Amino acid sequence: MPLGEEKNGACDRSIYVNNPHLESMTEDILYHFNLGTSTHDLPAMFGDVKFVCVGGSPWRMKSFTEYIAKELGLSEPNADYPNICAGTDRYAMYKVGPVLSVSHGMGIPSISIMLHELIKLLYHARCTDVTVVRIGTSGGIGLKPGTVVVTKQSVDSAFQPRLEQIILGKPVVRSTELDGELAEELLQCGKDLAEFETVIGNTMCTLDFYEGQARLDGAFCSYSEEDKQNYLAEAYAAGVRNIEMESSVFAAMCKLSNLRAAVVCVALLDRLKGDQLTSSHDVLNNYQQRPQVLVGHYIKKKLNASKKS
Amino acid sequence: MPLGEEKNGACDRSIYVNNPHLESMTEDILYHFNLGTSTHDLPAMFGDVKFVCVGGSPWRMKSFTEYIAKELGLSEPNADYPNICAGTDRYAMYKVGPVLSVSHGMGIPSISIMLHELIKLLYHARCTDVTVVRIGTSGGIGLKPGTVVVTKQSVDSAFQPRLEQIILGKPVVRSTELDGELAEELLQCGKDLAEFETVIGNTMCTLDFYEGQARLDGAFCSYSEEDKQNYLAEAYAAGVRNIEMESSVFAAMCKLSNLRAAVVCVALLDRLKGDQLTSSHDVLNNYQQRPQVLVGHYIKKKLNASKKS
Repeated sequence: MPLGEEKNGACDRSIYVNNPHLESMTEDILYHFNLGTSTHDLPAMFGDVKFVCVGGSPWRMKSFTEYIAKELGLSEPNADYPNICAGTDRYAMYKVGPVLSVSHGMGIPSISIMLHELIKLLYHARCTDVTVVRIGTSGGIGLKPGTVVVTKQSVDSAFQPRLEQIILGKPVVRSTELDGELAEELLQCGKDLAEFETVIGNTMCTLDFYEGQARLDGAFCSYSEEDKQNYLAEAYAAGVRNIEMESSVFAAMCKLSNLRAAVVCVALLDRLKGDQLTSSHDVLNNYQQRPQVLVGHYIKKKLNASKKS
Repeated sequence: MPLGEEKNGACDRSIYVNNPHLESMTEDILYHFNLGTSTHDLPAMFGDVKFVCVGGSPWRMKSFTEYIAKELGLSEPNADYPNICAGTDRYAMYKVGPVLSVSHGMGIPSISIMLHELIKLLYHARCTDVTVVRIGTSGGIGLKPGTVVVTKQSVDSAFQPRLEQIILGKPVVRSTELDGELAEELLQCGKDLAEFETVIGNTMCTLDFYEGQARLDGAFCSYSEEDKQNYLAEAYAAGVRNIEMESSVFAAMCKLSNLRAAVVCVALLDRLKGDQLTSSHDVLNNYQQRPQVLVGHYIKKKLNASKKS
């Protein structure tokens, strides 16, 4: 039931919530954002949002906001961007112009709580035509460290494009399909920039960083180096170019709510060559900025195009 | 393979890592803590740790450290407790005397990364006789808001005491058994204090806060109020008294590494009566301190007993 569907026949792409119970609630408290429909004027605060960038680390999402403000010519000298969710330490949220930047912590459950509340926020704020991009870090397979991967399909540990979601104790399978056109546009942005390598490939999403990603350096490990290499080779053969921990539920929830969505992650290391992050802080920091630069370029291009049209 | 096992026949309870690969590593980087065996003297920093308290929120873990310092008579006027993981925003870590306090974010994947690195940290630091307690928040079933639940068994969405962990693409089932004696001792602490209600019961651990816990207020909901009530009634009949998102992997990983472990969570609301957290900030804040007070009492009691013996 697309409660968010426009009734006026406009071609705006609306945000869907699929929950008939929301209509009967007099108030909706977005608890983990410390925001609510009674306490905040969500349409005034967020109605102009057209791009949402999400990433694990609150620091990175603040730095993205500073970066995009400068790129879009919206930054003022000594401007500080307050954390909109300052009353909680669960997530951090920043906004500049049409760009919202939100942290999501690590793993499927953490990003899923954030996305439930983000989708409701965008719905309550009556946003339209929103594009959401996850900008993150990942382990690469057969890639030079620092390569940026635009996700074609988010796949599970058996390399299938699906997410199993438990509802009332029963598994429900959801598609993790992403927007193919958007992925191609982002790949093109990487080529335009020519500052680092950008590739398109499948992204494996796991529930665990160590055993779930065949690492040999966790507290527990019951398999050999050879077992690890065989598993990663199978993943590579299935088109997997990087591994992270949020893309599947991100893809599934954005699809369910009619949000144009993409995943852009930098590979911090090549998992075929090792498991530990031994690059220097400065090198890793430079790598982490690459998805920001790529998505910043995309947003600028889109906004310039819409100004002209 | 219990690499951490004592060879001297002492009755100390050692931390096990179950990973033969660790021995051949010249350096171990605990990436998400921003600590490492080459860069930090882990035995000097952490060798005296006897209690580790973990919880989702970094703010709460700092406030627990301030509280326990006062309780144990270890606080100095104007003392500030620096975040040991200050170089990263993934987790926060504080220490006072024998008590380590670490945040873990939300959900199984987030706490699992932290626990892999915590277990290796305790192992590298050659700690012995460590007790780990998760102090958290949860949704209660049939409980008065503010009731503290000590977990008997951590169960999955089908009410079974197990965790399915994917390793190299294949499911492995692990036991989520906790230390029964420790749970009884913690329950007794609640009775000693008599400041709030404390009960023992099963805790359901889910991968999702909204659909996974039968909430009616997420962005998506495909079931009725009646379906929700039926599911929660089934959970109650299976002994479930609260629902949270970390206990199963916490129990499983502590068991695998020989750590005495318990889960103590306050119920912020009664899910039979609603889904949203409508209590005031002050009331919720008071509730969140209860697991800290209970576990603080337990630690004090144990340290006093060991001084006498």
